[in-house]
Amino acid sequence: MEHMVVGKLIEEDQEAIDEQLEALTQDDPYSLEPLSHTALKVHSDQPMNAEVPEELLTQHYLTPPSLFYIRHHHPVPHLTVEQIKNYNVEIDLSAYGKDTLKISLDDLKKMPKVEVTATLQCSGNRRSGFNEFERTSGTKWGQGAISTAKWGGVRLRDLLTHAGLEDPIDAQENGKMEHVRFHSLDGMMASIGIEKAMNPYGDVILCYEMDGDPLPRDHGFPLRIIVPGYAAVRNVKWINKIELSKDEAEGPWQRGLNYKVLPPDVRDANDIDLSKIPSITELGVYSGITSIDAVEGYVSNYTVGETVLVKASGWAYSGGGRNIVRVDLTGDGAKTWKSATLQEGTDQRYGRGWAWTFWECTMPAIVQDDGSVHLYSKGVDLAFNVQPESCAHQWNVRGLGNNSWFRKKAQLL
Amino acid sequence: MEHMVVGKLIEEDQEAIDEQLEALTQDDPYSLEPLSHTALKVHSDQPMNAEVPEELLTQHYLTPPSLFYIRHHHPVPHLTVEQIKNYNVEIDLSAYGKDTLKISLDDLKKMPKVEVTATLQCSGNRRSGFNEFERTSGTKWGQGAISTAKWGGVRLRDLLTHAGLEDPIDAQENGKMEHVRFHSLDGMMASIGIEKAMNPYGDVILCYEMDGDPLPRDHGFPLRIIVPGYAAVRNVKWINKIELSKDEAEGPWQRGLNYKVLPPDVRDANDIDLSKIPSITELGVYSGITSIDAVEGYVSNYTVGETVLVKASGWAYSGGGRNIVRVDLTGDGAKTWKSATLQEGTDQRYGRGWAWTFWECTMPAIVQDDGSVHLYSKGVDLAFNVQPESCAHQWNVRGLGNNSWFRKKAQLL
Repeated sequence: MEHMVVGKLIEEDQEAIDEQLEALTQDDPYSLEPLSHTALKVHSDQPMNAEVPEELLTQHYLTPPSLFYIRHHHPVPHLTVEQIKNYNVEIDLSAYGKDTLKISLDDLKKMPKVEVTATLQCSGNRRSGFNEFERTSGTKWGQGAISTAKWGGVRLRDLLTHAGLEDPIDAQENGKMEHVRFHSLDGMMASIGIEKAMNPYGDVILCYEMDGDPLPRDHGFPLRIIVPGYAAVRNVKWINKIELSKDEAEGPWQRGLNYKVLPPDVRDANDIDLSKIPSITELGVYSGITSIDAVEGYVSNYTVGETVLVKASGWAYSGGGRNIVRVDLTGDGAKTWKSATLQEGTDQRYGRGWAWTFWECTMPAIVQDDGSVHLYSKGVDLAFNVQPESCAHQWNVRGLGNNSWFRKKAQLL
Repeated sequence: MEHMVVGKLIEEDQEAIDEQLEALTQDDPYSLEPLSHTALKVHSDQPMNAEVPEELLTQHYLTPPSLFYIRHHHPVPHLTVEQIKNYNVEIDLSAYGKDTLKISLDDLKKMPKVEVTATLQCSGNRRSGFNEFERTSGTKWGQGAISTAKWGGVRLRDLLTHAGLEDPIDAQENGKMEHVRFHSLDGMMASIGIEKAMNPYGDVILCYEMDGDPLPRDHGFPLRIIVPGYAAVRNVKWINKIELSKDEAEGPWQRGLNYKVLPPDVRDANDIDLSKIPSITELGVYSGITSIDAVEGYVSNYTVGETVLVKASGWAYSGGGRNIVRVDLTGDGAKTWKSATLQEGTDQRYGRGWAWTFWECTMPAIVQDDGSVHLYSKGVDLAFNVQPESCAHQWNVRGLGNNSWFRKKAQLL
C-alpha cells in the first residue's frame, strides 16, 4: 500500500521522490521490486517467482495476500502518485467501430462492484514432478504455485457493454469479434474468448481489490483481470487496456510455446505448428496433500508392514468452475481408496466452483521399510474428470499441466 | 415418420386405427415399439438399449439416425394423429409467478430455428470395461453408446424469455430459480442448472429435427431437449413440459443412484448420502479406436517382436464443449506415443466443441506372440484433461464414466 502512505506527503516532496524513483529504475529495472514475505519459496527473484511452502498452503482458505504465490515475467510496474492519480484504463472497441473509452480508477469504483472468490494456479504448477521422468524447461514449481483470494471489481461484461458492445452474439457471428485482449503495463498480453468475457455466468471482473484491500503491487495494482476458472496467465496484472478483437492476443504468453501443451514426443517446437495448439485456458483437476500426521497411539509402536491410522489434509481444484466432488486417498499403493471429507469450498455453486476445496482424511496406511507411509491423492471434478496415475504419459517439453496423482511420503518416527 | 404416412388416410379410418393401437398397448406396452436397424447391437429390447457396432461407429461423422444408439427407460411413447395435431409443450413458470404458456408444434416451428451439431453419449458408455475388474450393474455397453447428429429447434433461452423470464440473474439470485426441469411423455424427468439453460453460449435447444428431418420416435418425436456437452440422460426425449424451479428434478434419473458416480469403496448406496453427490452433467474426455489395419507390405512377413506400421482410426469426445486438442496412440505398451491426425470435428469453436472429433494415425506397433498388435488411445481436451491409464481406480458400483485409455487388439494375420 505504499501509494497510500506516499499520498500523505506534500506535493513537492512527492515530485522529488518520484524523480528519484524513476532514476533508480533506469539503472536497474528491478530496483523498485516489492518486498516479498520471507516464508515464500523463491525460485527466481528477477523476475520474482515464488511459491507458497507446502506447510502453509492450506493454513487459510483465502491465502493471505503476502503469502500469495508470485509469478512475474518482468519487473513489477511502479507508478508515481501522479500516475496513479491520472490512471485510466482504455476500453478499446475500435475494431467494432466504437470510440475508445477511458475510465479512471475513481469512475471504475463507482460502477456496481462484485466480489468473486477464485483460485489462481500457474499452468506450470507441479512441474518439478515431470522432471523425475525427463527434464522440462521452466520454473521448478512444487505444489505451491496456487493461491486463493476474494477479488473485488467490476464485471468485464458491464464494462464492455458500457463501452458500446451492444449485441455480443451478433458482434461475434457477423462482426467476427471473437476475443477480448488484455494489455499490461509490463508489456505482457493475453486474451480470452468473447464467450467467457460476455457470459453472464462467467464472473470475469476487472479487479481493484484483493480480500477487501487495494491490490498489492505484486498482484496487479492498480488493476488486474480475474478470469475465474482459467489458468493464472490469463488473469493479466497491471491492466491499462482492454480490447475487443478478431484475433487472440499477440505475444508469447498467448501464441508462443510457453503456454501450450505440446505432444509428448515433441522436443523441438520447430517440429510442430504452434498455431494449431490452443493456448491454455482452463486447467484440469488437481489435488495436493499438505500434511500427514500419525493418529495418536500409533506413532511409537508401529512395525514395518503394519497398517496405521493417519490423518492427511490438503486441497483440490479444477478449472472451468468444475467443483471438486470427491478426493480419494490411498495408503497401500492404490489397492484400496478412502474418500476424504470435503471442507471449505463445498458451498460453491455447481459449475461456478472457481475456488479450491480443502479436505481432510483419516485413513489407513502401511508402514514402509524405512518407517514412512506413502499416500497418494486423486481428485474428481464435476465433469467426473480424474487425475491420471502417472505424469509419465502427460510429459511435455514445457512441463505444463502435471495433474497426476499427488504423492507424499511422511516419516512416522 | 409413420405419423406422416398415416396422415394421408381419411379421418374415420384414422380413428379406427388409433383405437386399435390403443388396445394393443393396453395388452402389451411394448407392442408399438419402432423397428430398429438390424445392425445395432441390442443389449435389451424391452426397453430397447442398443449400441452402434464398432465397425460402423466412425463410418459417418453424423451418425445415420437409423444407426444412432438407443437408450430407453420405458416403452417408446406412441401418439395418435389426433394427439400429434393437438400437441402442446407447457412452459411452466408458475414457480416464478407467471402463467404457464402452452406452445403448439406449429407455433414452435415459427420461432427462430437454430441447428447444433452435438454428440450424445450415455454415462455408462464403456461400462463393460469396468467389469473386467469387478462387476458393475447396468447395461454392458462397449464403446458404441455414443452418436452424433445435427439437431434443429428453438433456443431454450428464447422459449423461457418468451414465457416471461425477464432477468435470469435476478430470478436466480433473488427468486432462487436455480433449475430448469424437463418432463417426458414416458414419465422420465431430469433437469439442468439455469446457468446452462440461459447461457447465451450454452446452445440448449428444444429440438424437433434430427439431420433436417422430424425426430424419429426412438429419438424423441415430437420434441426433445438437446443440452450440448451434457451426458445424454439430460437430453430428455418426448418432452411435454419444461418447468422453471427452485429444485432439481425429482426421480431416479436426477436424484437416484443411476446417474451418480459413487466412490470406489462404496458397494451399497445406503452407505452414502446421495444428495451430496451431484448428478452427472458433463462427462470427461473419451476416445475410442474403431479400426486397425496393417499398412501394406508388412502383413505377410512380420515376425514376433518386430515393429510394423499400422493405420488406426477412431473418435474422441469430451463434455462441456471442451474440444479435443490431441489424441495420442501407442503400439508398444505406452513406452512411446504418437499423436494422431485430427480430422472431422476440428473446426468447432473453442469451448463449444459439442461434437466428437475423428482421427487417424499411421504408427508403429510391436507384433505380439500371438501375431496381434495392441494399441491404446488417450485423448486430451481443451482443459488439458487426460484419460486415466486404468479404469481400476475409477471403478464405481454403477459403472459410470469409464474414460480410461481405450485398448484394442488386432490380429495381423
